[in-house]
Amino acid sequence: MKFRRSERLIDMTSYLLDHPRQLVPLTFFAERYSSAKSSISEDLAIVKETLEKQGIGTLQTVPGAAGGVKFFVKVSKEEAEPFVNELCKLIADPERLLPGGYLYLTDILGSPQVVQKAGRIIASAYSEKKIDVVMTIATKGIPLAYAVASQLNVPVVIVRRDSKVTEGPTVSINYVSGSAKRIQTMVLSKRSIKQGENVLIVDDFMKAGGTVMGMMNMLEEFDAQVAGIAVLVEAEKTEERLVDDYLSLVKLSDVDIKEKKINVQIGNYFDK
Amino acid sequence: MKFRRSERLIDMTSYLLDHPRQLVPLTFFAERYSSAKSSISEDLAIVKETLEKQGIGTLQTVPGAAGGVKFFVKVSKEEAEPFVNELCKLIADPERLLPGGYLYLTDILGSPQVVQKAGRIIASAYSEKKIDVVMTIATKGIPLAYAVASQLNVPVVIVRRDSKVTEGPTVSINYVSGSAKRIQTMVLSKRSIKQGENVLIVDDFMKAGGTVMGMMNMLEEFDAQVAGIAVLVEAEKTEERLVDDYLSLVKLSDVDIKEKKINVQIGNYFDK
Repeated sequence: MKFRRSERLIDMTSYLLDHPRQLVPLTFFAERYSSAKSSISEDLAIVKETLEKQGIGTLQTVPGAAGGVKFFVKVSKEEAEPFVNELCKLIADPERLLPGGYLYLTDILGSPQVVQKAGRIIASAYSEKKIDVVMTIATKGIPLAYAVASQLNVPVVIVRRDSKVTEGPTVSINYVSGSAKRIQTMVLSKRSIKQGENVLIVDDFMKAGGTVMGMMNMLEEFDAQVAGIAVLVEAEKTEERLVDDYLSLVKLSDVDIKEKKINVQIGNYFDK
Repeated sequence: MKFRRSERLIDMTSYLLDHPRQLVPLTFFAERYSSAKSSISEDLAIVKETLEKQGIGTLQTVPGAAGGVKFFVKVSKEEAEPFVNELCKLIADPERLLPGGYLYLTDILGSPQVVQKAGRIIASAYSEKKIDVVMTIATKGIPLAYAVASQLNVPVVIVRRDSKVTEGPTVSINYVSGSAKRIQTMVLSKRSIKQGENVLIVDDFMKAGGTVMGMMNMLEEFDAQVAGIAVLVEAEKTEERLVDDYLSLVKLSDVDIKEKKINVQIGNYFDK
């Protein structure tokens, strides 16, 4: 079955967006559309130009016999900034304040549209870095972790607070939650991370950073490296933060539970 | 800035795939590309034809002044079947057997590629039905629930085993897990479901169906309706199943823990 250029462009776009960071040989498309490689190359040039112009991402061409093309997500600042501003507005509602300075974010984290867009923006910062795995902790961080991982084409591993039969053998560590100063436990399935892997830690919310620190300690047990830390929302604290090198989309400050006051700004994402 | 047809087709494809079940007015595209509505209509006809031909989905045109176009995911049988067969093969590995007849699925559920494809296939069965919310239970069902919900353009609500401060006020019920016959508790944030909403229940694994039954009972407390039940894997049991109207991609039978034997087939998805 022969494909016209217009059909090829539509299917190619769908295919590439669906297979980020995967090398797709030109022959794959040439066979899929019964077209000459030269036509496929021309198509890809148009796709690349449009994805870049629209702030969606880019294509990288790998030359040679084993070559092909790879899509990388790269949300432009012009696309990302209005979204993050919108997110700040959503979060600034004082009705979200919960005891202990926490925020009700369940509705925001429950929206696949919001989570996917946030995931794409976070993934853009790591799309050309060496990341083997995205790690998060149950439960709230899971959707964002998948949204990031799907754009990086890597698996997600989920740290839990308790071990379950369906996890198989696990590694368990104790950590001190930074804000509550309580000793807690986290467990991770032994099969989930291999020695030497580069791990991106993703979570929804970070206060003092105790949980993130716990995940970093867990990675030591697996002889794996922290390749990055990214959170949707960070709460600015007067006390010392345990983690300093991280990315945040949104930053809370001046959380005053009594006065139901809450100050929300863009996080450090665009500073880096 | 003027857009050529080829550029419009690429950006339109990306935009529509990203906004399933959302009415996009023709004027939106006309302004985005500084193009005449008649050209946009021609573009959309090409996009529709290609998405259908490739088994990705379809476009529905809503005529009139308030009209526009909507993308619906519709993975064709030719696209879905090889994937589900591959999934069966992956799951058939007897090393996955865990005590109690459970299966180690963490690696499969940890792959965003697998989860997204499965989610798209499940969503295809409900894409033209009235669904307001996707509901799942922590932790393992969460990624699949998001994958389904993102294609249906609805929020996800997550039932938990324990209540957390970040959930706000919750509703709690007891239920009997069908296989272990143990009384357990599940809780759901009060703000999460509105009266009369149509809820699609999604989970990774179903044995006797006790957990799914629990979620159905929970929906009664919210005066909401069950619009469907979909699971990735069902385990065929000799004892009576508590739930009968559901969709499954994969079916386990003859699970013999002693002999490490496990029989895996395609679920009932393609029967319906």
